[in-house]
Amino acid sequence: MGYSESMYAKAIELTRSVIEMTAAADSGHPSSAASLAHIVTVLMYDHMRYDPADPANLAADRLVLSEGHSAPIVYAAGADLGIAIKNNGETRQMTTEDSLELRAIDSPIDGHPNPAEGFIFFPAATGSLGQGLSVSAGMAAASQLNASDSRVYCLIGDGESREGQIWEAIDFIVDYELAAVCPIFNCNGYGQSDPVSVQQMANRTESKLRGAGFDVKVVDGHNPQEIKDALVMHTQRIEEGKPFAIVAKTVKGWGFTSVAKDGLHGKPVTGTDKDIAFEQLQKMLDDLPSITENLHPTRPSVIPSVKATSPVLDFRQALEEFGQADALDSGKLATRRAYGHALRALGRANPNIVVLDGDTKNSTFSEFFANDKELAGRFFECRIAEQHMVSCAGGLAAAGKIPFVSSFGRFIMRGYDQLDMAMISRFNVKIVGSHIGANIGADGPSQMALSDVAFIRSLTKVRDRDNNPIMYLLNPADARCAYDLTVAMASHDGACYMRTLRPDTPFLYGDEVEFTLGGHEVVSQGEDLLIVASAYMVHEAIKALPILEQKGINATLVDLYSIPFDVKEIVLLAKQNGGRVITLEDNYGAGIGSEVGDALLEEGGSFILKQMFVRKIPKSGRSTDDLIRYVGLSVEDIVEAAQRLTLS
Amino acid sequence: MGYSESMYAKAIELTRSVIEMTAAADSGHPSSAASLAHIVTVLMYDHMRYDPADPANLAADRLVLSEGHSAPIVYAAGADLGIAIKNNGETRQMTTEDSLELRAIDSPIDGHPNPAEGFIFFPAATGSLGQGLSVSAGMAAASQLNASDSRVYCLIGDGESREGQIWEAIDFIVDYELAAVCPIFNCNGYGQSDPVSVQQMANRTESKLRGAGFDVKVVDGHNPQEIKDALVMHTQRIEEGKPFAIVAKTVKGWGFTSVAKDGLHGKPVTGTDKDIAFEQLQKMLDDLPSITENLHPTRPSVIPSVKATSPVLDFRQALEEFGQADALDSGKLATRRAYGHALRALGRANPNIVVLDGDTKNSTFSEFFANDKELAGRFFECRIAEQHMVSCAGGLAAAGKIPFVSSFGRFIMRGYDQLDMAMISRFNVKIVGSHIGANIGADGPSQMALSDVAFIRSLTKVRDRDNNPIMYLLNPADARCAYDLTVAMASHDGACYMRTLRPDTPFLYGDEVEFTLGGHEVVSQGEDLLIVASAYMVHEAIKALPILEQKGINATLVDLYSIPFDVKEIVLLAKQNGGRVITLEDNYGAGIGSEVGDALLEEGGSFILKQMFVRKIPKSGRSTDDLIRYVGLSVEDIVEAAQRLTLS
Repeated sequence: MGYSESMYAKAIELTRSVIEMTAAADSGHPSSAASLAHIVTVLMYDHMRYDPADPANLAADRLVLSEGHSAPIVYAAGADLGIAIKNNGETRQMTTEDSLELRAIDSPIDGHPNPAEGFIFFPAATGSLGQGLSVSAGMAAASQLNASDSRVYCLIGDGESREGQIWEAIDFIVDYELAAVCPIFNCNGYGQSDPVSVQQMANRTESKLRGAGFDVKVVDGHNPQEIKDALVMHTQRIEEGKPFAIVAKTVKGWGFTSVAKDGLHGKPVTGTDKDIAFEQLQKMLDDLPSITENLHPTRPSVIPSVKATSPVLDFRQALEEFGQADALDSGKLATRRAYGHALRALGRANPNIVVLDGDTKNSTFSEFFANDKELAGRFFECRIAEQHMVSCAGGLAAAGKIPFVSSFGRFIMRGYDQLDMAMISRFNVKIVGSHIGANIGADGPSQMALSDVAFIRSLTKVRDRDNNPIMYLLNPADARCAYDLTVAMASHDGACYMRTLRPDTPFLYGDEVEFTLGGHEVVSQGEDLLIVASAYMVHEAIKALPILEQKGINATLVDLYSIPFDVKEIVLLAKQNGGRVITLEDNYGAGIGSEVGDALLEEGGSFILKQMFVRKIPKSGRSTDDLIRYVGLSVEDIVEAAQRLTLS
Repeated sequence: MGYSESMYAKAIELTRSVIEMTAAADSGHPSSAASLAHIVTVLMYDHMRYDPADPANLAADRLVLSEGHSAPIVYAAGADLGIAIKNNGETRQMTTEDSLELRAIDSPIDGHPNPAEGFIFFPAATGSLGQGLSVSAGMAAASQLNASDSRVYCLIGDGESREGQIWEAIDFIVDYELAAVCPIFNCNGYGQSDPVSVQQMANRTESKLRGAGFDVKVVDGHNPQEIKDALVMHTQRIEEGKPFAIVAKTVKGWGFTSVAKDGLHGKPVTGTDKDIAFEQLQKMLDDLPSITENLHPTRPSVIPSVKATSPVLDFRQALEEFGQADALDSGKLATRRAYGHALRALGRANPNIVVLDGDTKNSTFSEFFANDKELAGRFFECRIAEQHMVSCAGGLAAAGKIPFVSSFGRFIMRGYDQLDMAMISRFNVKIVGSHIGANIGADGPSQMALSDVAFIRSLTKVRDRDNNPIMYLLNPADARCAYDLTVAMASHDGACYMRTLRPDTPFLYGDEVEFTLGGHEVVSQGEDLLIVASAYMVHEAIKALPILEQKGINATLVDLYSIPFDVKEIVLLAKQNGGRVITLEDNYGAGIGSEVGDALLEEGGSFILKQMFVRKIPKSGRSTDDLIRYVGLSVEDIVEAAQRLTLS
């Protein structure tokens, strides 16, 4: 039996498995999965170089299934090839029995790609559409840094290619000549609810790709030889750095079109329909010359070496080394600048540190890293495409790098869906948003991060299997705090989100103070009132303290720079201050104030909490003070609130 | 003096104003603004049909400045033409003095387009990039429904065009033949931190547009005649429904290139640099034949008529009318289905209701509207492009429509940045996310809305000038509640976000119960413990009540279907129940539980609150019960928590 027939027979077999497992689960997307039958067969049984026993090896070719709902076809191959899965802490070969446990609550075989549950052949969780190509680009960028020849195959649905992020990734691949990524568009002609738009049909996808500078091969996605030839063509293009994509014309519900009417999205085939489907598949198999032999992928050859790390400069050393010692004398520095210096110090110490920015590097100060010749090769300018940037960072993390993503906090919001997917993947990403809060001043509300604390806080309340938060939210008020937290983020194996300030702010702490994930700092200890502040508002609170003292209010001030924090200590401080608490943040509510409230009420007791936050949509103002006053967070506002609370 | 010279002279004058006003503000982006000098002049002084005294008229041509940081050039024209602005409740002509108050805290002339502050010539707030073309498409869609011939000019930065959302909008414009939109790409060659990528250069943008099915004219963006000719060409294409874009090659810092080195992004020109800039501009003016006359735009002719509305069917009437009376007998219905029926009833009653979906209409049940022949013309299939969908809804709202945006709650997350911009614009948009919470079951975490409550809640805490929340978060547990809230959302002039459930759930309430924005429902009144639940968890709580009673715990249960809610009533209920409170939600934390906590602590007193929410990343499970148990929210978990709390 020839190549095509072998592959064709295997595709039939896998399609049958897909129908079996989705019927067993009584849910899933067999028709989408089957449209990929031949492509997945050619990739996983022939073209890709990987070891089924170690599919996540950094040297292996990888498959990113951007159209995550088609996972069953990959599971079918995984079960047949005995690809390694992780289950209850053990790594073992996947079996057909495993595939029949698809979507069960105790099964590692999740509805959509979810490597954290055990199917580690997938490098990333997918299922929110349009993100896989960015992840693939990040993985290829990591391979480029590692001088590895591993390739990344990314399967993209035609309906899915409507997502603009796909085209952000396409641009990035061209910019960085990441030709090792092979985007394969699965044009089966149907979305979930309708046939795809003319804008997502194969010929239009081809013309868009060519318009964006890609070379394109259109193939019959159910013709193994055509698929193979196109994949070989892609490999040839890699050395030229010439981006190349495959547009595959496929059939949704391939192999059981008799029952997969109108594409049959998201429905298993059961009962008599299943019998009819199996008959159709059997007939196709019978028409082939003979039963296929079991095919196996090639093993990869190159294993990238792990490079050594060295100690990181401390804050003072870094400022001196990087020519900003004057800040030490002036006594003030913006936290965003401290972040930039820390990135640079980290980059020199650890070859795995990589930095991404979205055309704001001269505002976030990630340019301190980008402009260092020694580090420039590990800086990725993602341009104005934050969705791509966040997913791309995930891909870099999937390939063992430690990515720092930098932009205005406001624009990081563009990538919240992507960040949430990164959490499902348990990616080790560090997100740093600058220009947070109303304090930024003149540029107005479209540039201010105001809802970010609320969103990120919801992630900090989720725990991983070891009971660690899946996310730390860091909100430094002080430059050294920002510096040390940046270093701490790099050491922590898990996601973090840090917020940095636009204005220069005075140093607050002596060299003896240590800053840690989960920490806080008691700035001043009193007994009448606990003020818990974050970021810029710590400085406003410090100005308020002497005025309060004049008025007979002896306040405790906490710089709450981390969420989560030590609940017991904060509650104790509240109790020591008569249960009276004011929280200060220059973002919208549901943030720090709510988090402190959660802590107080979890312990129980008698408390009163006045949350001060931004209660109206800000606007432009020429100075930070103008804005802080406009949103009701000035020193006078704090003093008034403190008086009202301590009188009550 | 000829046309080109008049326009050219005006462009010089406006550029001078731009320099003046950004110098006065000591911030802003004069170089970006100046790159648009001639385009804005030709549009605002000649080509656009609008009345400066009534620039927001539905019949007028509109200008959407997607690259919001270039606002000063439009302000310069606005001041010169005396375009109407709103200031302290009054509408008056803008003056040069107004422009010199750019970015001041008490000025209606904000740093980025912000019509809510007063410059109503702009239909939408912009500044987070890549969104304007979607807004423009929404406005054009509204005009199409109104049979108005108004045109929408959208100015897009070249760096900005990296945002995938631009390309989502391009596809939408082709799908709906919204040729009245004229995208104008301002190719000045620079982003904020660097020259643009080769992927955003004029020739690449042209080839991408052609690849996507657009006709394109490339012009010299500082040649008024070329600009005018291209605009006329666009107008000719409108009737053919043939999408047409203009790619303008421009100079960043045009007119003062002597001081605008490397594009000079985001910096005012001051001191001697300003003198040099003015000299350069003056020399250009001196080289022109003579001083220009003051030009004025044409007034629009067609004023669309406002159509009448009629009463909306109630829930029972709708189920009977729409053939789902069987639900009344079965006693259960998914809230997402109730939403679909409500959309249809609303659509028949009010011609301004429009509905958008992102290839999920057969899951969100917005298809009940889409499949009604009478309503189909007001349904917009945005395909898998949620960012575009949210901004496009904003454009429809800007043009007087009442848009309902439907998708999985998880995918609405893709449009949070866009939703935040819609808040700044004060757009009257209704967002409805389905498949919320861990209860969805088999599809896994990539399909579950888990952080949405936290994010949206932060917006509900922001108040408008009349002290109304800028956002209502609605979380119905019951089909009629979902139906009535959908109707209530349509009547409310402001943004709302509603969450609907995948599974069928039993009816909870008699016909006498009324549901309102801001309301809640006391399901059962006890004295030992207050349980506050939302959405799916109300049903779990109801199952727990009799078990609790057996164990001697007489609990009060509140269905908290709205945020904000009546704080006093909830606090009173907590006090009546010994200060012991459990909150139940099957999403991540920082949600309902935190909101209840905020209420308790604002009042002050002695309380203990056990928040029950999703504390680990969910996975697939074959049933809702499997998932609810997996995330620790089963009836048994509730009972156990209640016992622990009432014993303490």
